[in-house]
Amino acid sequence: MVIALLTDFGTQDYFVGAMKGAILSINAEVKIVDITHEIPPQNLTAASFTLRACYENFPRKTIFVAVVDPGVGSNRKAILVETDAYYFVAPDNGLLSFVFDKEREFGVFELTEEKFFAEKVSRTFHGRDVFAPIAAHLSNGVQPEEFGAKIKDFIRLKTIAPHKISEGLIEAEITHADHFGNLVTNLKHSDLPEKFTLEIGGKIISKLQTFFAEAKKSELFMISGSAGFLEIAAFQDSAQSILRVAVGEKVRLRTN
Amino acid sequence: MVIALLTDFGTQDYFVGAMKGAILSINAEVKIVDITHEIPPQNLTAASFTLRACYENFPRKTIFVAVVDPGVGSNRKAILVETDAYYFVAPDNGLLSFVFDKEREFGVFELTEEKFFAEKVSRTFHGRDVFAPIAAHLSNGVQPEEFGAKIKDFIRLKTIAPHKISEGLIEAEITHADHFGNLVTNLKHSDLPEKFTLEIGGKIISKLQTFFAEAKKSELFMISGSAGFLEIAAFQDSAQSILRVAVGEKVRLRTN
Amino acid sequence: MVIALLTDFGTQDYFVGAMKGAILSINAEVKIVDITHEIPPQNLTAASFTLRACYENFPRKTIFVAVVDPGVGSNRKAILVETDAYYFVAPDNGLLSFVFDKEREFGVFELTEEKFFAEKVSRTFHGRDVFAPIAAHLSNGVQPEEFGAKIKDFIRLKTIAPHKISEGLIEAEITHADHFGNLVTNLKHSDLPEKFTLEIGGKIISKLQTFFAEAKKSELFMISGSAGFLEIAAFQDSAQSILRVAVGEKVRLRTN
Repeated sequence: MVIALLTDFGTQDYFVGAMKGAILSINAEVKIVDITHEIPPQNLTAASFTLRACYENFPRKTIFVAVVDPGVGSNRKAILVETDAYYFVAPDNGLLSFVFDKEREFGVFELTEEKFFAEKVSRTFHGRDVFAPIAAHLSNGVQPEEFGAKIKDFIRLKTIAPHKISEGLIEAEITHADHFGNLVTNLKHSDLPEKFTLEIGGKIISKLQTFFAEAKKSELFMISGSAGFLEIAAFQDSAQSILRVAVGEKVRLRTN
Repeated sequence: MVIALLTDFGTQDYFVGAMKGAILSINAEVKIVDITHEIPPQNLTAASFTLRACYENFPRKTIFVAVVDPGVGSNRKAILVETDAYYFVAPDNGLLSFVFDKEREFGVFELTEEKFFAEKVSRTFHGRDVFAPIAAHLSNGVQPEEFGAKIKDFIRLKTIAPHKISEGLIEAEITHADHFGNLVTNLKHSDLPEKFTLEIGGKIISKLQTFFAEAKKSELFMISGSAGFLEIAAFQDSAQSILRVAVGEKVRLRTN
Repeated sequence: MVIALLTDFGTQDYFVGAMKGAILSINAEVKIVDITHEIPPQNLTAASFTLRACYENFPRKTIFVAVVDPGVGSNRKAILVETDAYYFVAPDNGLLSFVFDKEREFGVFELTEEKFFAEKVSRTFHGRDVFAPIAAHLSNGVQPEEFGAKIKDFIRLKTIAPHKISEGLIEAEITHADHFGNLVTNLKHSDLPEKFTLEIGGKIISKLQTFFAEAKKSELFMISGSAGFLEIAAFQDSAQSILRVAVGEKVRLRTN
């Protein structure tokens, strides 16, 4: 059984250690895997994107604990989501929106049964006191409905899809910039026309490559990314540094 | 059985991999957990605080390997500390001071039995050659007294406690700044008066909150932190950046 | 069974999580260990050095997955290397050169049997789609020769060795700067004369120490490093910052 962690806690503090300790105190046998703890602080979209980009690589019955939680301690709910293949434990703040988009059927349970929380629950660290213990109890065989009632009014962020501006012109945007400076758009491979160019930051990119090393050093090109979206990249260089753009930057796709 | 690691080795080098390899070569079954490897280089206080803030979340019999070791290769001792519930393996340089403060009874053993070290011990990397092998042998069932004699003259840093300056005025300090820029003081929740204000960096903070989202964006407030100490925070912002203070900064608590 | 990972993927993206998920989907029991994911992007020498510096600390039969892969998706080969004690899975681009230097006998197999790859192989992320699944199948007992034919024409970078300039003068270089700012040279301990000085960045260093704390704060000295090479260090300071030199910087060794 695997519990996979994704947070914005960073790796220099006691936060991640405390969560892992809390999990292992309840289930000493479970395998804990770090996805990342470097989601930009309080960035729900980045967390949601990153989780979406890798959760299906994990074995069936993996339990994902995703904590980006600016509303910790307030009256925001805590939820457990069960899909055909996976479980997700997270605050009810839209973090799982990309998962909801990808899955057809799923159940959402509100985590209310305090007997599965830490004995003393802090108001500032539910990663350790609520989400980690819930995931550990789940890995021990507690059933989703034992943690609380099924709900329908969970929060789902409107994920921004590309939209048509006029005939042959679509407006998309950059949803993620990765470690290498590759810029991930929200254009799905399956939605792309046969021929097109991209316009971003005043530049037009018309070369579509199948792999990185096809280009000259620092040359900008489009490439089919491994997360399922069109990316803008530069061989042996950072497209983000060259274009000087941030996540959220608009991209115009023209077919002609 | 869990071995939990806390060091200032960073994560870009071979150091952490070498320690893990050394452990697994002796006990292939043990579960290795990273607390953090990003303690600021040679900062014993930060290491001690971080360990204290999370060790009690781990299952009984967890072995903590804590290595911040500016005196490596010199005649500083290496020690094993046994408490009722846990084991700690570390250089004898004060790193475990916060643990000593928290625990009532514990035994300290000097690590002298070289048969439990690596075959060849370097003068610069005892994390790999001494502490990792000791922890692994301990996880295999070797008893604490087999590693060396019990000692009384181990090093214990005077951990800085808040002190009273005059009636209604206490001087405390910032002991840690976390990933989010929250500033952790050395004021324990249990020691706080009912009503008080804090003075730091020329500013007075009088709002005490129970959770983050109660404040307006960037507003400074006090909050009961998850490590057991009063913290200074700012909602969706970094209190450290706003106040421009460093660890060690004095904080004045006034009751009136 | 251990699978140890070394990449330049960074830790903020979905890349590492996706690799781990892919491995655990094939072998749920294998132990995954991170060596580092912070090799400077596309730096084969740093990857090769880091792997060399720690692989022998791991238990026999450990499988190393090393991915620094600027040529991903092109016609560069993917290889599996089998030594007496270990397995290495990597792109065929010279990343394993330091391993080749250290090992006497080894077999190199080209990874061509696509039935052991992911069902759908992307052109940009073979870490997830080729190397992770191969390592997992290997850990499940698939034999090296089942993945593809043995080859002789694999890529081996000429690792830069120190060379003699004149009598009593050797030119070496800095091959690595670690987290503490220690500068690792390519001078092996076994190759050092009895007495010598080093010249680097206009400074002459003549003090050879056996451990760090022997020096005064910020004083530069030479020390026998834990990776088997001579290092330049400064006590409680960064030799790299003091000398302002980068990896590749020449070092002159004089015997006199």
